[in-house]
Amino acid sequence: MHKSYLSMTKEELLSEESALKEAYERYKSMSLSLNMARGVPCREQVDLSEGMLTVIDSGAKCLSGKTDIRNYGILDGIPEMKRIFADLLGVPPENALCGGNSSLNMMYDAVARAMIFGTEPNFTPWGKQKELKFLCPVPGYDRHFAICEVFGIQMIPIDMTSTGPDMDQVREYVENDPTVKGIWCVPKYSNPGGVIYSRETVRAFASLRPAAKDFRIFWDNAYIIHDLYEDTPFPDIFAECRRQGTKNLVYEFSSTSKISFPGSGVACLVADNEDILWAKKLLSFQTIGPDKINQKRHAAFFRDADGIRQHMKYHAAILRPKFEAVTDTLSRELDGLDICSFSHPRGGYFVSFDILVGSAKTALRLAADAGVAMTAAGSTFPYHNDPYDRNIRIAPSFPSVDELKTAMSLFAVCVKLAACERLLGLN
Amino acid sequence: MHKSYLSMTKEELLSEESALKEAYERYKSMSLSLNMARGVPCREQVDLSEGMLTVIDSGAKCLSGKTDIRNYGILDGIPEMKRIFADLLGVPPENALCGGNSSLNMMYDAVARAMIFGTEPNFTPWGKQKELKFLCPVPGYDRHFAICEVFGIQMIPIDMTSTGPDMDQVREYVENDPTVKGIWCVPKYSNPGGVIYSRETVRAFASLRPAAKDFRIFWDNAYIIHDLYEDTPFPDIFAECRRQGTKNLVYEFSSTSKISFPGSGVACLVADNEDILWAKKLLSFQTIGPDKINQKRHAAFFRDADGIRQHMKYHAAILRPKFEAVTDTLSRELDGLDICSFSHPRGGYFVSFDILVGSAKTALRLAADAGVAMTAAGSTFPYHNDPYDRNIRIAPSFPSVDELKTAMSLFAVCVKLAACERLLGLN
Repeated sequence: MHKSYLSMTKEELLSEESALKEAYERYKSMSLSLNMARGVPCREQVDLSEGMLTVIDSGAKCLSGKTDIRNYGILDGIPEMKRIFADLLGVPPENALCGGNSSLNMMYDAVARAMIFGTEPNFTPWGKQKELKFLCPVPGYDRHFAICEVFGIQMIPIDMTSTGPDMDQVREYVENDPTVKGIWCVPKYSNPGGVIYSRETVRAFASLRPAAKDFRIFWDNAYIIHDLYEDTPFPDIFAECRRQGTKNLVYEFSSTSKISFPGSGVACLVADNEDILWAKKLLSFQTIGPDKINQKRHAAFFRDADGIRQHMKYHAAILRPKFEAVTDTLSRELDGLDICSFSHPRGGYFVSFDILVGSAKTALRLAADAGVAMTAAGSTFPYHNDPYDRNIRIAPSFPSVDELKTAMSLFAVCVKLAACERLLGLN
Repeated sequence: MHKSYLSMTKEELLSEESALKEAYERYKSMSLSLNMARGVPCREQVDLSEGMLTVIDSGAKCLSGKTDIRNYGILDGIPEMKRIFADLLGVPPENALCGGNSSLNMMYDAVARAMIFGTEPNFTPWGKQKELKFLCPVPGYDRHFAICEVFGIQMIPIDMTSTGPDMDQVREYVENDPTVKGIWCVPKYSNPGGVIYSRETVRAFASLRPAAKDFRIFWDNAYIIHDLYEDTPFPDIFAECRRQGTKNLVYEFSSTSKISFPGSGVACLVADNEDILWAKKLLSFQTIGPDKINQKRHAAFFRDADGIRQHMKYHAAILRPKFEAVTDTLSRELDGLDICSFSHPRGGYFVSFDILVGSAKTALRLAADAGVAMTAAGSTFPYHNDPYDRNIRIAPSFPSVDELKTAMSLFAVCVKLAACERLLGLN
């Protein structure tokens, strides 16, 4: 156990700083070049799906029922792909819409449809209303926030707890402010905190009685089966909504981007009957149908939801040592110093790291100058504004275990140096 | 040569009608079931690209330069695919953006971006302006018109001539009315007329000086290399714009939907530097990138633009007899009756058929009742409103030659019957 920086004298801190600077310069001289900025699957993970490239190898296999899937049509995706997502998410297949390669695109489109056409027929489009707000549990996912920003939707940060967003704050806003139109949620293994929303949290979401009838929960279930250890079932929010007597409250999103190929997966939208009908109606102006051959590749390669669950165990076997390399290295270097805390996620793609207030930018600049690029400071907050300059998102998936050990040892030095200087009043 | 209906006496018409009714009932008793409603490639055409399914059969082939195309990234498409479209369209690759499987989706998105964000940074979005109009050369493509309709953009029909839209009408509107924001064009083998815009027409488009600075030409080059007979080069409108000193005037669209697989092709947007930059900037909020493996499949299977040109000869060999079965049957049955005229296209996907004014709906209802579904009457006009109830779109690609001969023989009976009744004052 290291000695706490908070109990060090100024002299001790100065001597520590000097030692850290030496250590830092040694790393710098190594000319590292590592990118940990985003949750990108590594080569070995992507290789797991190599068989998918050739599983549909003839026109004869390009059939869904009697339909030739090479041709036009089937706006909402082939039934076998809808079935797989429905089973994974615990919803009826008729409420699922399978699209192209990007769930982000589906989220953007869902917001765009609401902006231009409204969430239901004859509703005033969001874009024709004076004020629009989204709730943003923080830390959160920068691409969610970017969608709000580009559409001019005001973002309100909501505190995260170990069981999900602070539901008192959420309820207060959603049930009293009709300009609050949405909330971004990554309910299982939240990005970046790795939080699994508790059943009580899911229930609290399902029982919301929004002041705005065109309010929707954007339920980005990106990591629904992305467990690093044991299988962790997660409740279906639509079933909870039915129990609570709410409907057309949730847009759920998922994709195979981190199951098959990040750039060539299949994305899925799930919504209640009226919501999905309205989405399909508007989608029919937008396209004739998604890439059904690629959907068929997925259905043929994985066979069913259990096939995907099994496949995710191979991913976990690759990712687990990487996550453990990160958290073990950070623990060994930083535990007891009282200058940081970080998550020990059981799934998902990130380790969330909180450093001494006011030191995140400095630590990340130091890391970048030594050749390790990490997600930019502030990225996990709306408007890139981390009010405490504290949160850092670590993405362990892409580099090798050895690279991660080196990168995290360097990062620990950067964290300590930034904290030291902060405590010494130097930054 | 048949005797003209217009020179028949009432008795002759009544006797003709009676014979036609008998003929019609014979067809009806055949219980036909043929769908010619849309421009759908047939099985044999789709089979031509079977090799594309397996051309990328290993992770090792999933490379574009040094980039692993299975993973995230490359917002605007892989360079080898951009190069192919650029060569086909005669534009620089840096002005091309290759996306997913649907050029219709790209057109919708281009309209949606202009509606929400404006055509350039800091321009007033179309959606915030009071009145919006698009010019629609008629007959035209129903899915273009549907996009205008869903966005509430008023459509103004423009007459087509044998050399393209009537450019006097176009110029009058575009150069004087600042609420005119766009025009839909299918410049080569127009849908449905099969018209190839002349060089003068292309030049007239390129020299437009729009009253609205946020006016754009939507140049849907869907059939750029879809020649049925000889290769027919077509001028690049951007080069013409440069000669005329205009820029940021054109969005050009194309796709491989009718080259490789209708549901699993690659779509492309081309625009001038500022326009393409703005599109990419906004697209970066929408998605991380297109399905690059599918782009690579296309690039590897076709190799280059010449590979696509060669491939199109195989399509032409399949389609030519179908188009000829349609036009030959129609000529044999209808020439000289003075009740219709129709196109003899040299490419594209449609035969455009004009029947005696006020008879299209009747003829199509008769055909449908006898089991031949064709594009609904009015579809080729904004708001499904053919003011003369005259134009019928025939899509010869999907049925077999024998089916087409039967269907067109029946259709000719329907046309004659509808015209007879019209002339007799019965409908």
